[in-house]
Amino acid sequence: MITLSLIGIGTGNLDHVTLAAVRALNNADLILLPRKGEAKSDLIDLRRLLCERLLEAPVTTKIVEFDLPSRDGRKDYLGAVDDWHAAIASVWAQLMDEHLPNGGRVGMLVWGDPSLYDSSLRITQRLSAAGKQIDVEVVPGITSLQVLTAEHKIPLNALAEPVHITTGRRLRECGWPSDAATVAVMLDSGGAFATLPQDDTYIWWGAYLGMEKQCLINGWLSDVGDQIIQRRAELRDTHGWIMDIYLLAKQPLL
Amino acid sequence: MITLSLIGIGTGNLDHVTLAAVRALNNADLILLPRKGEAKSDLIDLRRLLCERLLEAPVTTKIVEFDLPSRDGRKDYLGAVDDWHAAIASVWAQLMDEHLPNGGRVGMLVWGDPSLYDSSLRITQRLSAAGKQIDVEVVPGITSLQVLTAEHKIPLNALAEPVHITTGRRLRECGWPSDAATVAVMLDSGGAFATLPQDDTYIWWGAYLGMEKQCLINGWLSDVGDQIIQRRAELRDTHGWIMDIYLLAKQPLL
Repeated sequence: MITLSLIGIGTGNLDHVTLAAVRALNNADLILLPRKGEAKSDLIDLRRLLCERLLEAPVTTKIVEFDLPSRDGRKDYLGAVDDWHAAIASVWAQLMDEHLPNGGRVGMLVWGDPSLYDSSLRITQRLSAAGKQIDVEVVPGITSLQVLTAEHKIPLNALAEPVHITTGRRLRECGWPSDAATVAVMLDSGGAFATLPQDDTYIWWGAYLGMEKQCLINGWLSDVGDQIIQRRAELRDTHGWIMDIYLLAKQPLL
Repeated sequence: MITLSLIGIGTGNLDHVTLAAVRALNNADLILLPRKGEAKSDLIDLRRLLCERLLEAPVTTKIVEFDLPSRDGRKDYLGAVDDWHAAIASVWAQLMDEHLPNGGRVGMLVWGDPSLYDSSLRITQRLSAAGKQIDVEVVPGITSLQVLTAEHKIPLNALAEPVHITTGRRLRECGWPSDAATVAVMLDSGGAFATLPQDDTYIWWGAYLGMEKQCLINGWLSDVGDQIIQRRAELRDTHGWIMDIYLLAKQPLL
């Protein structure tokens, strides 16, 4: 029997880790760390640092790094994701069989929180469906949305109003969601906000949130939209990868 | 000069507190703890416990409790909230003047995260607008939404789909938001989901999330809707207060 802890670790600021995450990390027999390729080596470095800093008895915890399969870039997005999840599930199962043949506790460090645009729970579900005996536990972590609002010192919602969380892809396809006063956009490959009316939309943008190289810009889209697109391209060139999100509103939030 | 830390403390599980929150708490010269009346005394008890457990040198930190003004129940909701925020801002200002006449660091413990349906940032804005020299810093905390999904072991979003976060009031008035695959409902005074189609809507409900008396129910509304309404009324009678939220979806999330 395997107990799998999906441990939300926040977005790169070690101080955003919770006491529960520290405990879950220390309770694990095996910690699996995904490598996502050279360009994103910052991310594995951060996970290594987190283990180094927070494990109280590293000698009893086995840390195993593995190459995360990559998603093919074909147009059928959901199909590509399905194949990708199957490939990851297969790697996880192999690693668990190899390193914990008699069962035990596995810790997986999940960027942000396991609930928000993360596939770990779906991949775990695949392992269960394939007959693997897995007991899953989820340790919540601070999401990039919370760091975005904290760093800009704004709330997520206008007073008593709803919030819509969506993807860059969806914002491009569907425009402004009809029932939302504020819209948070994640997983944008760049500049989906350029498809919106520029004069009456305000943006709070953040890249590498919680990390030392964090970058924040805010203003009306007509004033800062182009600047964000340009800065994003420069940062991506400099660091080899980028993660950024933003919040949009039609009215002030405070 | 006052530096005000709005410290997200999660929802009652001390282990959900972050390392940054522990540090912010310990850096404060003054911690203000709101009392919300007899019925909600659990909430002040939890804040007291948190200070007791996490303050390393309690002797240097002044902890001051105060009675939170209550909101009048008049129909003009936004008007009532406006008056209420003005009354709280006035109490905060008095307490800061009295206990930190020469300035210093004030810590406020915010339930959940300061970004989500919380008024602390708006109240701070009032103090600044009234001429008080305040530097604000926000420390993110785990929200009840993250605990809800963690405890039910589900994601917040269906694969690549948007999420809508709204209030019970709004769900009653506007029904299912047009662009959302999943809908999270907060601040429901009870049973707003009963206004939705019951057969094809699934609910994951949680009360007192993260606390010892946590209660979870999930199922199709046609199967568990009445049970949730009844259980909620019983729990409220037993404990004198209740905080609950839920997630709704038209399709499986995993």
